[in-house]
Amino acid sequence: MSKMRDEIREQPTVLERTLQANRGPIEELRDILQRDPPRFIMLTARGTSDNAAQFGRYLLEITTGIPVTLAAPSIFTLYRARFHFEGVLAIAISQSGESTDTNLVLERARDQGARTIGITNHSSSTLARIAQHVFLVHAGREQAVAATKTYTGQLLLLYLLAYALGASIELDDLARLPEWTARSLTLELDIARRAERYRFMEHAVVLGRGLNYANAFEFALKLMETCYVVAERFSSADLLHGPIAMLEASFPAFLFAPAGVTWPGTREMIDRLTELQAETLIVTDTNNVEAARDRRAIVLPVALDELFTPIPYIVPAQLFAESLAEEKGLNPDQPRAVSKITRTM
Amino acid sequence: MSKMRDEIREQPTVLERTLQANRGPIEELRDILQRDPPRFIMLTARGTSDNAAQFGRYLLEITTGIPVTLAAPSIFTLYRARFHFEGVLAIAISQSGESTDTNLVLERARDQGARTIGITNHSSSTLARIAQHVFLVHAGREQAVAATKTYTGQLLLLYLLAYALGASIELDDLARLPEWTARSLTLELDIARRAERYRFMEHAVVLGRGLNYANAFEFALKLMETCYVVAERFSSADLLHGPIAMLEASFPAFLFAPAGVTWPGTREMIDRLTELQAETLIVTDTNNVEAARDRRAIVLPVALDELFTPIPYIVPAQLFAESLAEEKGLNPDQPRAVSKITRTM
Repeated sequence: MSKMRDEIREQPTVLERTLQANRGPIEELRDILQRDPPRFIMLTARGTSDNAAQFGRYLLEITTGIPVTLAAPSIFTLYRARFHFEGVLAIAISQSGESTDTNLVLERARDQGARTIGITNHSSSTLARIAQHVFLVHAGREQAVAATKTYTGQLLLLYLLAYALGASIELDDLARLPEWTARSLTLELDIARRAERYRFMEHAVVLGRGLNYANAFEFALKLMETCYVVAERFSSADLLHGPIAMLEASFPAFLFAPAGVTWPGTREMIDRLTELQAETLIVTDTNNVEAARDRRAIVLPVALDELFTPIPYIVPAQLFAESLAEEKGLNPDQPRAVSKITRTM
Repeated sequence: MSKMRDEIREQPTVLERTLQANRGPIEELRDILQRDPPRFIMLTARGTSDNAAQFGRYLLEITTGIPVTLAAPSIFTLYRARFHFEGVLAIAISQSGESTDTNLVLERARDQGARTIGITNHSSSTLARIAQHVFLVHAGREQAVAATKTYTGQLLLLYLLAYALGASIELDDLARLPEWTARSLTLELDIARRAERYRFMEHAVVLGRGLNYANAFEFALKLMETCYVVAERFSSADLLHGPIAMLEASFPAFLFAPAGVTWPGTREMIDRLTELQAETLIVTDTNNVEAARDRRAIVLPVALDELFTPIPYIVPAQLFAESLAEEKGLNPDQPRAVSKITRTM
């Protein structure tokens, strides 16, 4: 069995441990931020952590009303721009804590007046040293090159940050995430069976909106790095503004389809894809009765409020990518041309 | 001949007209913004206009030091988040001025305290009516579904906005953009010949960094909507964080490679792609002597400062997409499944 699969299975435990370890520190941060709330938030990350940052962008804007941007690292590292960063909260996310450009962005932001937070899996990393406030994912060592348990751990910490920034999120609800994630894992065999069908898939598109937009990026990244599938990722709205032209009959499309505000648009998108004879596969849960009836739906056996879908929803996608890599005869733990710590500027 | 090709050729004239018409209005805006500069900028757009917004993000941050974010429309339209927008300048970009969600984001931003700017090709559009300050692309009607002349017109207006926000950009330099763009157009036959080679290309990756990152998105969009190629787009740094695993021998890679701060990283990327036996095609100019020596380089016959490359550099990409569509027997003016005005929420 692959390390990636082991690590996918560890997620309920990692979430539980990460939540327990950060309850105290997050209450302290909440006190500090409530006295002096930021006017603006900047997230910085690369790779899977950047997908977590994309989730953070949606979560923080939706639940706190503070404008958020995702940093473009080259503006700091190559163009050496000088910013006006008073009132800015800069948050860096990195599994290893050794992502060169992410760390440099955080240092520059700090030097230009921002407060800084680091989210990492490694307490002795450079990121943990340079950030003013550090929140640790307690994932243990992540051995597979394709990140799984650190992604969901990062998502959980972003919920906690939203809470610290005044979002009306209950810690008791977050405490149920390990259980919901365990429910996702019960689909392991079903998903392995479904993945067989895609043995010869060479390209695909992954769609998600709102809080699950980041999951579309993360699922696509997993398909690219472990299965070598050319995987596009869009919000369904962006797909309609041009790229939909490339979809032809049998084009594989994967969609995250929770109940809630994004469902009407997602349903329209599914209808449109069906017209184009694309082949859809949907990730949903029992709370979305309509989506759960779809012949090609992966239905998590739990009823979820949309706010809490991103962590349980990425699990079937991780399992799918791992299973498909195995079907294709690839080693999901060692993607060609990629190493665990990537240093870019 | 296609309308798309006609419109690509019109670009020097459109740029000239757009610059002349906006010199007065931009000086007025400059006076206003210098008295009361924004603390934060939010850009909102969809499709090709969103690629222009991506360029605006880099240009404005690099040249003004004001943090910029690209709006996530669903946060306004579906989640109905309430923002704290005092001191924010909201800029909407839309060819038609009738993009439902873009307009709604701008109205919500205005209602929550932001100042607003609209960039559009249509003076009688909804966007022109709702924005406090309006800057018009003088492109005439754009008939091809694939936008070309309005994209470069939008880029020009973003340079003018940077000027109005205090960037040290000389209007005299901007006045040379029509001429530089005309130089790009002299490559028309060369590019048509090169496109033949790609007749059976089914997927590709387009890479650009910094000021040309948006061009990577725009080139990929043109390949998707006019040639039905599954075109990925990344910064070279992001490609290294996982997706590079999907590249195999003969994988077509297109790169924008100006001289300047992004060149060392781009050169490393080209070397890496060569190792992987991917097939590269580079857009550069005579100012990048090293890149211009590459056997597979499209070399614009002009020496450009990186700051001014994005408009002249997208022209060969537009010509390439148009030529390739013709080679593939497709009508570049009427992509399947796409209409000129796309209304999404």
